[in-house]
Amino acid sequence: MIKKAYLLSPGPTPVPPSVLAAAAEPIIHHRTEEFSGIFMEVTEGLKTIFGTREDVYILTASGTGAMEAAVANLCSPGDRVLTINAGKFGERWSRICRAYGVAARDIVLDWGKVLPKESLEAELEAVPDVKAVFATLSETSAGQVFDIKGFGEVVARTQAVLVVDGISGLGAAPCPMDEWNIDVLIAGSQKSLMIPPGLSFIAASPKAWAFIESSKCPKFYFDLKKARQSLASRTSPWSPAISLIVQQKKALEIILAPGLDKLIAHHHVLAEATRAGVRALGLELLAERPGDILTAVRTPSGIDGKTLVKTMQTKYLAYIAGAQDPHKGEFFRIAHLGYMGGFDVITALTALEMTLADLGFAIVPGTSIQAAEPILKENWS
Amino acid sequence: MIKKAYLLSPGPTPVPPSVLAAAAEPIIHHRTEEFSGIFMEVTEGLKTIFGTREDVYILTASGTGAMEAAVANLCSPGDRVLTINAGKFGERWSRICRAYGVAARDIVLDWGKVLPKESLEAELEAVPDVKAVFATLSETSAGQVFDIKGFGEVVARTQAVLVVDGISGLGAAPCPMDEWNIDVLIAGSQKSLMIPPGLSFIAASPKAWAFIESSKCPKFYFDLKKARQSLASRTSPWSPAISLIVQQKKALEIILAPGLDKLIAHHHVLAEATRAGVRALGLELLAERPGDILTAVRTPSGIDGKTLVKTMQTKYLAYIAGAQDPHKGEFFRIAHLGYMGGFDVITALTALEMTLADLGFAIVPGTSIQAAEPILKENWS
Repeated sequence: MIKKAYLLSPGPTPVPPSVLAAAAEPIIHHRTEEFSGIFMEVTEGLKTIFGTREDVYILTASGTGAMEAAVANLCSPGDRVLTINAGKFGERWSRICRAYGVAARDIVLDWGKVLPKESLEAELEAVPDVKAVFATLSETSAGQVFDIKGFGEVVARTQAVLVVDGISGLGAAPCPMDEWNIDVLIAGSQKSLMIPPGLSFIAASPKAWAFIESSKCPKFYFDLKKARQSLASRTSPWSPAISLIVQQKKALEIILAPGLDKLIAHHHVLAEATRAGVRALGLELLAERPGDILTAVRTPSGIDGKTLVKTMQTKYLAYIAGAQDPHKGEFFRIAHLGYMGGFDVITALTALEMTLADLGFAIVPGTSIQAAEPILKENWS
Repeated sequence: MIKKAYLLSPGPTPVPPSVLAAAAEPIIHHRTEEFSGIFMEVTEGLKTIFGTREDVYILTASGTGAMEAAVANLCSPGDRVLTINAGKFGERWSRICRAYGVAARDIVLDWGKVLPKESLEAELEAVPDVKAVFATLSETSAGQVFDIKGFGEVVARTQAVLVVDGISGLGAAPCPMDEWNIDVLIAGSQKSLMIPPGLSFIAASPKAWAFIESSKCPKFYFDLKKARQSLASRTSPWSPAISLIVQQKKALEIILAPGLDKLIAHHHVLAEATRAGVRALGLELLAERPGDILTAVRTPSGIDGKTLVKTMQTKYLAYIAGAQDPHKGEFFRIAHLGYMGGFDVITALTALEMTLADLGFAIVPGTSIQAAEPILKENWS
């Protein structure tokens, strides 16, 4: 058989052909009216994705750059903050804070677990003078989605700001920034926003801007005050990744024609079908509150998890993701994110069945499809 | 006539069609052997461009990000450094240093002027304990190229490191890092390296690495120690701009087939033709030591410089660059950089002649071409 690869990872995600083609257009200069028009159209479209009236800034950097921008712009050395850490990306908040001398108290949970808003409230009461809470919408390393709405309710009653890493989740899980009292929200380009990695996006509430004005952490490239000043002139302070922004315009057209609600609903259908398929095989999900972004599945006993992922990737060219350190082999992650459709779920499940059979797991072919197909069909529109 | 645009700016520069097409290929995952191979091929190719045995790190950020990486990784707050500032980009070194609390003493020169190595030597003797000298290979705002070789001789005799912004110059002007005793060298993707903006590159000498080990400035996304650790695993610490790196591989194939010397020689021919054409029109160059990257030309008296640039850009769609603040209107900049050929110089000069005629400047059509054409023809091969 010819080799045909299927990207089923939680970033990068497949890019629509017309969006790929947009990158093949001749490059235009970024200090022109033509590009300013594109740039502003993208920032406007992102406001809809973010659910905010605030400006959304485009950074030429992948998501970690925007996370650093949040810390460096909001905080000063010695500030007391809370981080919610139930996986690689929650942990990253803590690492960035420490790099800047920000006193992070980490609320550490097992991977896949979530934090009840009441627990966050108790932490905020117990720790005096918390300036910021750093949270994650969708913890990509383990597949759970946090109660950001609840966190927003709790944090809004304090002096602290709520900072949310929505890099993998935004667009695939509801997260309306203004309505949910989120003060800083971040997104990445290579997830539900359907373009390659290289851009990240950040918006800040008026409450957050007051912190930004007095922040004493050093910053330059990620300085949001410079970004705000440049946006007033319909541009960015530094050379932007022009071709990626042109692609983002095209992708936002695809996304916003049906609307954000439809994009979120689409992800929910794919996720429901995936979860049903996986469960029909007798497998267990890792996440306490699984998100519609990706499904993390515990490796069944008797099977080597690393071999499972490797077989999926190299024999079937179905690029799911494995588990990251320190949980390598313990579970695997099937994404249903961005420009993936119902048949991509079928592909993932079928490749999983074939792989499990290869590894000696008793499988009746089609078992997962029997469960997933009706969910897809019922919601097909 | 149909509208056909010509990009004649010092970044972004035109991208070869096959390199544009590479961005339209389906996205691949970055944690795969396939991508690691591409990633390592690019880092290897960049070592040739940099003229170094050291590793070259790929940052997903435009050039200013790499400049910040140099400051944040080398320095600690309070360190004494020198910056050579004869334009916007030299000034940027100083601004980044100040943002990090680094005590920059700025050697300020008029735009277009260069610093003799003897003057740098005298500064280094006068100021005790200088830790770093921040210089610019090609000052894009004014078109001059500095004596980096001379700076290298002078700085190598001290405890300081020499940091060179080669963003617009590298590939178009000689700048062999190891041979010239450069300790940190930076480049950008959207100049002679022929791809869109969004990537920057940085390499450090063993002398610089000793500084990096003891630096106390905060950093995370731009942390070179993390980049070094990841490169050992043939990857980058954060999601890289995959499509741009795939494009850079393609562009480096185009560049390195004939070789770096040919690329530099090519730029010299284009620059010589441009300078001859401009001078034949009776116009004056701004730079004391003009580089082969772009030619900055003083606006002739009686002509409004802003109108000149606007006419070039909007009537003839010849996207040269104007002068930046605080020198707006005083000169204009014609780039001959990256994927531009001999006839692009002819285009630029002809559009300039037409524009000057529009603005009432006495012009005999073809005057500049008479001077430029023989230079191009003689070197055509």
